[in-house]
Amino acid sequence: MATNVDTSIPAKPTGAAAELAESHSTEHPLKLYGGWFCPFVQRAWIVLAEKHIPHQYVEINPYRKDPEFLALNPRGLVPTLAVPTDAKGKHPKPLYESAVICEFLDEAYADETKFGPRLLPNDVYERARCRLWIDHIASRIVPAFYRFIQHTPDKSYTIEDVRSEFHGHLKTLAKEMDTSGPWFLGDRFSLVDIMLAPWAKRLFLIDHYKPGGVGITVAGQRGDDEEVWSRWQQWFDAITERETVKQTWSNDEQYIDAYKRYADDTTSSEVGKATRQGKKLP
Amino acid sequence: MATNVDTSIPAKPTGAAAELAESHSTEHPLKLYGGWFCPFVQRAWIVLAEKHIPHQYVEINPYRKDPEFLALNPRGLVPTLAVPTDAKGKHPKPLYESAVICEFLDEAYADETKFGPRLLPNDVYERARCRLWIDHIASRIVPAFYRFIQHTPDKSYTIEDVRSEFHGHLKTLAKEMDTSGPWFLGDRFSLVDIMLAPWAKRLFLIDHYKPGGVGITVAGQRGDDEEVWSRWQQWFDAITERETVKQTWSNDEQYIDAYKRYADDTTSSEVGKATRQGKKLP
Repeated sequence: MATNVDTSIPAKPTGAAAELAESHSTEHPLKLYGGWFCPFVQRAWIVLAEKHIPHQYVEINPYRKDPEFLALNPRGLVPTLAVPTDAKGKHPKPLYESAVICEFLDEAYADETKFGPRLLPNDVYERARCRLWIDHIASRIVPAFYRFIQHTPDKSYTIEDVRSEFHGHLKTLAKEMDTSGPWFLGDRFSLVDIMLAPWAKRLFLIDHYKPGGVGITVAGQRGDDEEVWSRWQQWFDAITERETVKQTWSNDEQYIDAYKRYADDTTSSEVGKATRQGKKLP
Repeated sequence: MATNVDTSIPAKPTGAAAELAESHSTEHPLKLYGGWFCPFVQRAWIVLAEKHIPHQYVEINPYRKDPEFLALNPRGLVPTLAVPTDAKGKHPKPLYESAVICEFLDEAYADETKFGPRLLPNDVYERARCRLWIDHIASRIVPAFYRFIQHTPDKSYTIEDVRSEFHGHLKTLAKEMDTSGPWFLGDRFSLVDIMLAPWAKRLFLIDHYKPGGVGITVAGQRGDDEEVWSRWQQWFDAITERETVKQTWSNDEQYIDAYKRYADDTTSSEVGKATRQGKKLP
């Protein structure tokens, strides 16, 4: 999935993400074409940061898209990864779809002595199980996030409906998390955590914009759900404080501005339009 | 994706698929729980057949679902794979989602001397590119197939709209196929071919049920699309004649019966309902 960036938002990352982008601004054959605002980009960016993969980060100005970028990905969607195909870094080939990019980066930079622990388990069954829950995030949690933040009173369903749907999908995931915590796989950080991290960081936008906010019941008043919400909270606290998640994050207020069009359900982004029309996310 | 089987269709495979099921009916710790009718099941079944993986095929009777099966997958969806976790085959663990199952089988039965060529390329970039086009099949072609076969005159869009959308997604894929043919990767058969095979086999249902049918222009009259449709035809002819695709296929008339509810847009399958409601496929 990808974002065709709204043309109303600032053209550059700010805060920590500006520093990270600046430190990866010199020419390199492996290029991530991104947008600071896009959660799908943030997934790929986190993987690059986690594994300390040498690369160049290129912020795509939505007003004036780089011709080199458009040649690589005519649809003009971010994230796009330019993958060098020879030693000189000429003739780059494109990859897109954030999940495909993330798994590619983990497989292409697999040397654990250089790039740290692999982001999917070596055990074949456990790896497949991770892919199942990555699918749950992509096909259930992320679409529900957009239905939630784009909910307006004129919809055919209430905000309580979308809140309850969103809670259900989070709880289903939390029940599958290793009980020892903090990560999905327990003490091992993985792509499952990364795939959801950008939306965990954006949950405060629902509190900011939507009546009743995210609305997870406070600890001690959750009845039968006490355990599952407590596990969710443990994961949420850990992921939002993860160094690479913070490094790829601009200033909070920039997201508040950028998501106003989502909250009003007037965004022209691909993801936003698909959600408004009740379609599958692109 | 998966199918919650309509309860109006026969409970058993017929024809070639009945033979294949029968030859894999004895107890084995690796079990594919399937439905002869379900294209998502057929994907996994083709992988098992291609790689000659020892297994047991268990047809799930939609009228009376096996308790052992429901214990493994409480949602009751097929395909479900029971994966043995110890030498005695006790304590099976479940996998579902056909794409996850197929990639798992390729990775778990990786010994090429026993199970034949791997179904994804060894080259990391080429593997990622295959995953991109598997995603295109899952997120574009398959949903368009259901919008096409479930089209009825009362929809807000015409059958020409869905036909044109479907053609567009097929052509996008065909343009990415290795020009030497017949497979997506040229002479190498892969998961990209398998992922689309079940719907290629079901295209005749659109000819049977929908005015104008699939409607690909005949050779020699395709103008600028001559080359791309000719490449599509080459792939289509090869995949529908692939031995494992035929082995996992029941008699044609069974599908005609089974898909009548789709064509009338009255099916109660999960995929059919989601399509009718304009939602993402489950």
